[in-house]
Amino acid sequence: MNIENLSCNKSFEGWHKQYSHYSETLNCTMRFAVYLPPQASSGDKVPALYWLSGLTCTDENFMQKAGAHRIAAELGMAIIAPDTSPRGDEVPDDDGYDLGKGAGFYVNATQAPWSRHYRMYDYVLTELPALIESMFPVTGQRSIAGHSMGGHGALVLALRNPDRYRSVSAFSPICNPVNCPWGKKAFGAYLGKDTSSWADYDASLLMRNAREFVPALVDQGEADDFLAEQLKPEALEDAAIHSSYPLKLNRHDGYDHSYYFIASFIEQHLRFHAGFLFR
Amino acid sequence: MNIENLSCNKSFEGWHKQYSHYSETLNCTMRFAVYLPPQASSGDKVPALYWLSGLTCTDENFMQKAGAHRIAAELGMAIIAPDTSPRGDEVPDDDGYDLGKGAGFYVNATQAPWSRHYRMYDYVLTELPALIESMFPVTGQRSIAGHSMGGHGALVLALRNPDRYRSVSAFSPICNPVNCPWGKKAFGAYLGKDTSSWADYDASLLMRNAREFVPALVDQGEADDFLAEQLKPEALEDAAIHSSYPLKLNRHDGYDHSYYFIASFIEQHLRFHAGFLFR
Repeated sequence: MNIENLSCNKSFEGWHKQYSHYSETLNCTMRFAVYLPPQASSGDKVPALYWLSGLTCTDENFMQKAGAHRIAAELGMAIIAPDTSPRGDEVPDDDGYDLGKGAGFYVNATQAPWSRHYRMYDYVLTELPALIESMFPVTGQRSIAGHSMGGHGALVLALRNPDRYRSVSAFSPICNPVNCPWGKKAFGAYLGKDTSSWADYDASLLMRNAREFVPALVDQGEADDFLAEQLKPEALEDAAIHSSYPLKLNRHDGYDHSYYFIASFIEQHLRFHAGFLFR
Repeated sequence: MNIENLSCNKSFEGWHKQYSHYSETLNCTMRFAVYLPPQASSGDKVPALYWLSGLTCTDENFMQKAGAHRIAAELGMAIIAPDTSPRGDEVPDDDGYDLGKGAGFYVNATQAPWSRHYRMYDYVLTELPALIESMFPVTGQRSIAGHSMGGHGALVLALRNPDRYRSVSAFSPICNPVNCPWGKKAFGAYLGKDTSSWADYDASLLMRNAREFVPALVDQGEADDFLAEQLKPEALEDAAIHSSYPLKLNRHDGYDHSYYFIASFIEQHLRFHAGFLFR
């Protein structure tokens, strides 16, 4: 393993740390961040929440802006924040902010030129947790959450792997990517024109057909500029009714798509996950 | 008045807003941010905490990274965050990050080419509060706080104007700028080679000779890379002993100069200020 510590900041008596490592899944060097609560310094293992960020983000946005360390420190929960795509000069990119670097959409690409590097689904599901659980005092108790594109990723990963995650939550997720511009553009490029393969990465389609359940919490701002065209929470609600999925979806008057919305409700999400991670 | 609203985000049931306006003091267009707690929406006036940021920052860093909205919303306190220098193409600058734009040092410059625009002391003391108190449901009860260069600014403004501020606090302030590289470079440029004028902007010299007191809280991380060379909290502690100044200075093992340190202790600062703002 070729792992380098890039930074280290004490935060709420725990530690925020950034690392780079070579990913065999993504065939490039990746950066991730981890928040280790003070409980992890005493030698005890703590459970972990994986956070998936949205378009244009890196490992830094959530750690800097969400205000989550305070609650993670109280609860004794690690937070793991991967980057949002493969990175590096050798990785193909697109001029748009919604395809290529910063826009991996948490899928395993099957189409050239993307398929060599854009395998964020496998990276988040398998390679990163194995690395985290070998490096840090972290148990195999995992939950997953995210925002926007990352909310889509969190829901898809949990819906397809109910044995891997205790709970899932999302802020302003892209709920039905096969039916919105962001999803059609990204899935068309990464997965190809045959839309039958797209269903494996659509939270609403997966939830509609779910047989095994992961407790799910979603919060959505009503003043979100992307709500009607890109996010479509009504599709997820319809799917949950169809399969009797344990989904709690809250709508909030006046809140937008920004990190101010996430910060306002992140405490409720961490306490929700704690209810399953510590059970 | 020529004031433009640039953004508006709901946050913890209150509102974060950015504005631009033409400053007669600075002779340029300035941006500032305000957080209005939910109590301000009911028509009641709320007291205000002014936050002064450090080198390279704008009005955004504190609002996005400090996690202060949660506590301000609970307490019913507005937060006002000005920029850290005059801005615009017509404003002189320097190649260094520690002089010119992003580095106003909260002084009134007397030397060319700086003196036409670099008057952040007067802007923060007089023009900005007058604007804020005319635009928003904010009382004349003010406290002031800041980080690094902004901690220096907050201390100097409070020490020189005990009638204007109820309390003052700082994270990692530049305590004795006449004796550190950052201060010598900035004061030399803005105030000139005659160092006798520098004392009006040095918190340790002002505190040593203080006769009127503003309750003061300072937090300093022991792992701060700038501690010994630039910040010198021991000078402030010595001054407080000399004048029996009501200064509480806390040192924290392991914490650095970053916003992770500020976020870890901002709740204590806001509650400290509330104890005087609501008295």
